[in-house]
Amino acid sequence: LRVGYPEVVYGEGKTSEQVTEIATYMQAKGQNVLITRSNDHMYETVVKACPKARYNPLGRTISIVNKAYQETSSKISIIAAGTSDLPVVEEAYETAKIFGNKVEKIIDVGVAGIHRLFNQMDRIREAKVLIVVAGMEGALASVVGGLVDKPIIAVPTSVGYGANLGGVVTLLGMLNSCASGVSVVNIDNGFGAAYNASMINRL
Amino acid sequence: LRVGYPEVVYGEGKTSEQVTEIATYMQAKGQNVLITRSNDHMYETVVKACPKARYNPLGRTISIVNKAYQETSSKISIIAAGTSDLPVVEEAYETAKIFGNKVEKIIDVGVAGIHRLFNQMDRIREAKVLIVVAGMEGALASVVGGLVDKPIIAVPTSVGYGANLGGVVTLLGMLNSCASGVSVVNIDNGFGAAYNASMINRL
Amino acid sequence: LRVGYPEVVYGEGKTSEQVTEIATYMQAKGQNVLITRSNDHMYETVVKACPKARYNPLGRTISIVNKAYQETSSKISIIAAGTSDLPVVEEAYETAKIFGNKVEKIIDVGVAGIHRLFNQMDRIREAKVLIVVAGMEGALASVVGGLVDKPIIAVPTSVGYGANLGGVVTLLGMLNSCASGVSVVNIDNGFGAAYNASMINRL
Amino acid sequence: LRVGYPEVVYGEGKTSEQVTEIATYMQAKGQNVLITRSNDHMYETVVKACPKARYNPLGRTISIVNKAYQETSSKISIIAAGTSDLPVVEEAYETAKIFGNKVEKIIDVGVAGIHRLFNQMDRIREAKVLIVVAGMEGALASVVGGLVDKPIIAVPTSVGYGANLGGVVTLLGMLNSCASGVSVVNIDNGFGAAYNASMINRL
Amino acid sequence: LRVGYPEVVYGEGKTSEQVTEIATYMQAKGQNVLITRSNDHMYETVVKACPKARYNPLGRTISIVNKAYQETSSKISIIAAGTSDLPVVEEAYETAKIFGNKVEKIIDVGVAGIHRLFNQMDRIREAKVLIVVAGMEGALASVVGGLVDKPIIAVPTSVGYGANLGGVVTLLGMLNSCASGVSVVNIDNGFGAAYNASMINRL
Amino acid sequence: LRVGYPEVVYGEGKTSEQVTEIATYMQAKGQNVLITRSNDHMYETVVKACPKARYNPLGRTISIVNKAYQETSSKISIIAAGTSDLPVVEEAYETAKIFGNKVEKIIDVGVAGIHRLFNQMDRIREAKVLIVVAGMEGALASVVGGLVDKPIIAVPTSVGYGANLGGVVTLLGMLNSCASGVSVVNIDNGFGAAYNASMINRL
Amino acid sequence: LRVGYPEVVYGEGKTSEQVTEIATYMQAKGQNVLITRSNDHMYETVVKACPKARYNPLGRTISIVNKAYQETSSKISIIAAGTSDLPVVEEAYETAKIFGNKVEKIIDVGVAGIHRLFNQMDRIREAKVLIVVAGMEGALASVVGGLVDKPIIAVPTSVGYGANLGGVVTLLGMLNSCASGVSVVNIDNGFGAAYNASMINRL
Amino acid sequence: LRVGYPEVVYGEGKTSEQVTEIATYMQAKGQNVLITRSNDHMYETVVKACPKARYNPLGRTISIVNKAYQETSSKISIIAAGTSDLPVVEEAYETAKIFGNKVEKIIDVGVAGIHRLFNQMDRIREAKVLIVVAGMEGALASVVGGLVDKPIIAVPTSVGYGANLGGVVTLLGMLNSCASGVSVVNIDNGFGAAYNASMINRL
Ligand SMILES: Nc1ncnc2c1ncn2[C@@H]1O[C@H](COP(=O)(O)O)[C@@H](O)[C@H]1O
Ligand SMILES: Nc1ncnc2c1ncn2[C@@H]1O[C@H](COP(=O)(O)O)[C@@H](O)[C@H]1O
Ligand SMILES: Nc1ncnc2c1ncn2[C@@H]1O[C@H](COP(=O)(O)O)[C@@H](O)[C@H]1O
Ligand SMILES: Nc1ncnc2c1ncn2[C@@H]1O[C@H](COP(=O)(O)O)[C@@H](O)[C@H]1O
Ligand SMILES: [Mg+2]
Ligand SMILES: [Mg+2]
Ligand SMILES: [Mg+2]
Ligand SMILES: [Mg+2]
Ligand SMILES: [Mg+2]
Ligand SMILES: [Mg+2]
Ligand SMILES: [Mg+2]
Ligand SMILES: [Mg+2]
Repeated sequence: LRVGYPEVVYGEGKTSEQVTEIATYMQAKGQNVLITRSNDHMYETVVKACPKARYNPLGRTISIVNKAYQETSSKISIIAAGTSDLPVVEEAYETAKIFGNKVEKIIDVGVAGIHRLFNQMDRIREAKVLIVVAGMEGALASVVGGLVDKPIIAVPTSVGYGANLGGVVTLLGMLNSCASGVSVVNIDNGFGAAYNASMINRL
Repeated sequence: LRVGYPEVVYGEGKTSEQVTEIATYMQAKGQNVLITRSNDHMYETVVKACPKARYNPLGRTISIVNKAYQETSSKISIIAAGTSDLPVVEEAYETAKIFGNKVEKIIDVGVAGIHRLFNQMDRIREAKVLIVVAGMEGALASVVGGLVDKPIIAVPTSVGYGANLGGVVTLLGMLNSCASGVSVVNIDNGFGAAYNASMINRL
Repeated sequence: LRVGYPEVVYGEGKTSEQVTEIATYMQAKGQNVLITRSNDHMYETVVKACPKARYNPLGRTISIVNKAYQETSSKISIIAAGTSDLPVVEEAYETAKIFGNKVEKIIDVGVAGIHRLFNQMDRIREAKVLIVVAGMEGALASVVGGLVDKPIIAVPTSVGYGANLGGVVTLLGMLNSCASGVSVVNIDNGFGAAYNASMINRL
Repeated sequence: LRVGYPEVVYGEGKTSEQVTEIATYMQAKGQNVLITRSNDHMYETVVKACPKARYNPLGRTISIVNKAYQETSSKISIIAAGTSDLPVVEEAYETAKIFGNKVEKIIDVGVAGIHRLFNQMDRIREAKVLIVVAGMEGALASVVGGLVDKPIIAVPTSVGYGANLGGVVTLLGMLNSCASGVSVVNIDNGFGAAYNASMINRL
Repeated sequence: LRVGYPEVVYGEGKTSEQVTEIATYMQAKGQNVLITRSNDHMYETVVKACPKARYNPLGRTISIVNKAYQETSSKISIIAAGTSDLPVVEEAYETAKIFGNKVEKIIDVGVAGIHRLFNQMDRIREAKVLIVVAGMEGALASVVGGLVDKPIIAVPTSVGYGANLGGVVTLLGMLNSCASGVSVVNIDNGFGAAYNASMINRL
Repeated sequence: LRVGYPEVVYGEGKTSEQVTEIATYMQAKGQNVLITRSNDHMYETVVKACPKARYNPLGRTISIVNKAYQETSSKISIIAAGTSDLPVVEEAYETAKIFGNKVEKIIDVGVAGIHRLFNQMDRIREAKVLIVVAGMEGALASVVGGLVDKPIIAVPTSVGYGANLGGVVTLLGMLNSCASGVSVVNIDNGFGAAYNASMINRL
Repeated sequence: LRVGYPEVVYGEGKTSEQVTEIATYMQAKGQNVLITRSNDHMYETVVKACPKARYNPLGRTISIVNKAYQETSSKISIIAAGTSDLPVVEEAYETAKIFGNKVEKIIDVGVAGIHRLFNQMDRIREAKVLIVVAGMEGALASVVGGLVDKPIIAVPTSVGYGANLGGVVTLLGMLNSCASGVSVVNIDNGFGAAYNASMINRL
Repeated sequence: LRVGYPEVVYGEGKTSEQVTEIATYMQAKGQNVLITRSNDHMYETVVKACPKARYNPLGRTISIVNKAYQETSSKISIIAAGTSDLPVVEEAYETAKIFGNKVEKIIDVGVAGIHRLFNQMDRIREAKVLIVVAGMEGALASVVGGLVDKPIIAVPTSVGYGANLGGVVTLLGMLNSCASGVSVVNIDNGFGAAYNASMINRL
């Protein structure tokens, strides 16, 4: 449908065989492929048929670049509160990459140690669009939103326990952000955030 | 803070006098002002001090253009399902306008009569960024997201009854959209959607 | 009780032995049997006693046709958004079948790629009653409801993650459908939808 | 769109003038009109322009029959638990009527006094399709579903207090009905139930 | 504390050793013991030290009668909708038994086949107090409450799926029962219901 | 149905005229009447037709004793945490009274000042059955349940704010009570508690 | 009970007369009184009997200092995000004052404009204990918690709309704070926070 | 950052290797370390590199005291309802210990047997600050709050079943406590409660 775009396969609930079949078909057509929510076994099956497949175990993505692409000159920054948010960061990173974006990760800048965030403000301000990944109360989205005049796509993560309700509290907190310029995607949806950011970065 | 931006005042819970004071101060500085969640009485008080004030009763906004601005050449489209979503549409429209955007409204294109949406696809595809406003199950965001390759900011409205839970179901439905490229703001938050869209439209 | 109806056994929480006992008893009486929410082990136990038993592993159903039945001339169509909804589709399909209905599956027509749905409209319009199976935001029920003038039974599925809340958001979204003619059954309840559709198809 | 169908106007959030305008337009075209969620003032405004308008204050409906219609020979029965469910019963009744159905009301047959329901079983069994209206725990839908072999459309009402949560408990209870053959519409949605029932009754 | 009462031990989260220690201590004192939420391993450990221990695997209870007791002449009836409610029925039954009550089980009388309930009304009416165990929408409590003039303790079970929310819908439905005389205990709390019923039966 | 019982009318949502009609009819038959959820206007209308009517404005009940009744010798105690729970206490009190029970109120014994509760333990222990009325976290039910060996019917009230959720937290807290012997009725349901207690008190 | 403490009266749901009676009684005993959740009419009634009564209309408190008290040398700081949180700030302020604390208000330092918070850090660090009042996503508690090594009592406010759920999202967000040292009281509970802070400040 | 404080590592979601690396680094710097949410395997890995590591399997903590500290003279008391709350008690205990506090555990004093609590009141009153750990309905926090004039930090636990909702009911109950002086931390957050209590105890 969308000419030149990589094919994206949502791996959850698909067998390694089903995914490999799609990947092989796309390889034959010379198209790039991104598989999200994959796993070790899926990668091992895919890579046999598609030797260019590259696996990001933390982000649970498989990227297959069959056709070189031109990277954007403008940049997407992915900002994350803590190390437990890394799986979502990596899903977003791999997505942004294979959609042809220059992309940068700035992690461990949660608001409990806000000076670390301030130390990164110059790098953050260079980006054209920001992805903010956070769990718990999701305060990082508000703080970044107050500091930067760029479109921000916030991704709540399911990191937390007790009254966190599997990320629902983080999600609703981000939607209530007192800072303007923040829009939100589903819990743990690094792919969706990066797809969105890519659209904006390419404008 | 942000030089050249209009000042935005959230009218809810403020007295007409408090709002007028801010408006008068900004008028003296030659700055544009947008007041959201206002009401008839607030407008009547403000307009005495700021004769340029213009009231949108449906959107509950007061706009005061003290300084002419250049309109963007690219366009924001605001797409809405039904007539009951109009207050949110108007809040978004006035916000986009005073932030200097070319903006267009396409209403009454809900998915229950999907041909009306298809009739508008050419106009919709001309926009640089889309705002989709819908209540009930919020299906319009998914349908537009599947048809258009533009960033979409979805605004759930509190229109509905019974199991609608004051818009929460619409909100969560939009966050679960099966279409990529959709990000979401708070229920009835036309301002936030337009602020976001304006940032993107001006990139 | 209801003469001529197949006996339906809800397999969840029953042992393979308990289920086989019921199936054997019904076989002796020459009555048809449908077992839902079964599993591989249950099938292997049942088929030893009832060699006519046929297993649908995706739908988790066991069908035992001990007595031939006349198929209806009018048709039930089961329409589904994506491949992950297939288990529910298959449960509905097997139920409709053993209750003697002509039934057709139309899958992978989710609203994110709405042209695929439009390509199937002629087939869809031939049905007497429709079952719409969808997860995520459940928009498919609204879209089909707006296009077709037939009774629609919507089945929300528990497919999704994050703010999907195990299908509750899909369920509530479908109940808020802006299209008339849509009624709803419990999450993943393919059996209930087909039982209902069968009653209507046989009117 | 749907030739010969009455035009349905959802009165909530519309002004009496807006509704009158639609009604007058339809009167000129000789089409029947149903206005739901109306009120006294709306009726008084409408009836001046459309003298055939008839008001049901309990059901909050205005019916305008501009063109005689043929009544079905088969029957819809509307069964209700208590007198507080009557507004929903009346909305369903007026909808079924103007869509050309023979329709009957059987009220005050809640399960707390189950003999009253049993006294009505003969009449209930004559119907082609049933609408069951109930608040509180919604048990009536299950009981009727167990007794009758007809399609049942259950309408939860917002009648109740405390842990009833505005009808949400009734709604979810009905969706969990242990009886087959029950599908559900939104809380207080008498219109939707009758629209559905009418489709089925006319098959 | 309460002289003559059996000691009740809540087995969940305790080791087999901890439970055996308590049981042995009570055996030495000649007191009766009831262990709830136990399991096979716990029973095997306990029975070595306390040979009178009797295990109910369905109800997950261990009963140790070290001291004979006089059974009441009045009766508790435990009424249950379906076979999947049996674990809760058995927990209630064993509790009532060891607290010295005459107790009777009447199962598989759910409202989807209400004639089976009616066939048992004479036995039900003989009881002094009733325990009603049901899952799904919990309608049985209302129906029995409407038919019988006895105190009813309703126990919602976590049996169900989808919008059942782990028994919360059943619980809230029972609390909204339209029949008087029904009070409710926690989901799956057969012990609590029987403890209560025992207090009442012994008045 | 139940010979000799007072007729109970739930006033909410009924007109003063409807209620008066029922009351007059029962007066003619010499039967006692209790009207709950009434109001000043309803009382004034009723008392004109039934001069024996007595109004409890706090409990919102109207009691009409047309036929003298024998009071029980055993006692129901109604125990309440604070003065804001009084409306529910009074509804329970009037219900217990007209059903012929000896009944006593013990108020302002919330757990924040637990010594006041201890001062009343002797009176509390004299009762045959207890009604515990409390809002906020509902701890009183657990404390009384731990101290007294009597059946306890707990009534959560909607008193509280913020995270109280209109009494739902109190309700669920009471259902999780760590003390045995506590069963629960709907939020603010003083009538239901007293009806239950009366059944038990009369055993 | 607690000698020397002011008497605190929760005005909500009490009549002006009831409150005045308590206030007069305490005045006679020379004790200080704080009335929370009061209103204009209540103040006018109280002040006639107790001329020392002072009203804070924003905080809805009435303070009556009948006996001078010694102010603490250590300080409580009340920090608030925005002007709409002021009613809660004032309730906390008046409570802290009449309990004899030195107390300071630092408002309008929400995270959307974080530099204003940093400008106040020196004053904030002087306090012995902090009260942080915020609505929306409640991020301020986390940010302050990360910057200051003092006990923090967070008060969520019901300020917000849409997916804010009346402050529940703020509350749960604060409980999930990624910063240590934050404990939480009920929504809008300025009194409770100050009571707590006072206990700590007086250690 | 905070000089002299032990380093706290949140073990959940970290590998044993990652945690050991941090622990070794801190050992080299002579700093104390607390690892929460650890497990057997993590301890075995850590202790090889840091022989001073001490494991609390119930509390799931690893404490490494590399530098002796001075214990406070004032005391923190940790009060718990039942034995199933012990894991949270132990996490709090180890945290308070390594932060240098004198700390005492008082367990099995739940309100269902309130005399056991009263037997401990003298010890409880000696503490400077209290931590109350409870599951189910959380009534213990209110009762202690009513009896003691000390700051109380309440920790809801996820102990319970059915309508307990994983501790959310306990949490909200504690926030609605009718006793003043109670503030609350997240479900099962023994660490957070002790960190807070330590701050207060050291004032
Ligand atoms: N991690 C993800 N989360 C949400 N949506 C995804 C994710 N990965 C892929 N998708 C969407 O799923 C589509 C592919 O789905 P499928 O055809 O089932 O493989 C893509 O086009 C994306 O829109
Ligand atoms: N009471 C009702 N509840 C739900 N939907 C309704 C109701 N009444 C009318 N509708 C729907 O609303 C549509 C008309 O909406 P509108 O064009 O806004 O007046 C009708 O075609 C129905 O599908
Ligand atoms: N199945 C059950 N559900 C709820 N509470 C129970 C159950 N079994 C026992 N109990 C309660 O738990 C107490 C014993 O708890 P424990 O001292 O922890 O063994 C008993 O006295 C009962 O009050
Ligand atoms: N059990 C716990 N619950 C909540 N927060 C904790 C817990 N243990 C440690 N923390 C916090 O987590 C921080 C360490 O997180 P990390 O850097 O991811 O190891 C500590 O400074 C504490 O603030
Ligand atoms: Mg910003
Ligand atoms: Mg798109
Ligand atoms: Mg349709
Ligand atoms: Mg049926
Ligand atoms: Mg009864
Ligand atoms: Mg007791
Ligand atoms: Mg801190
Ligand atoms: Mg206290």
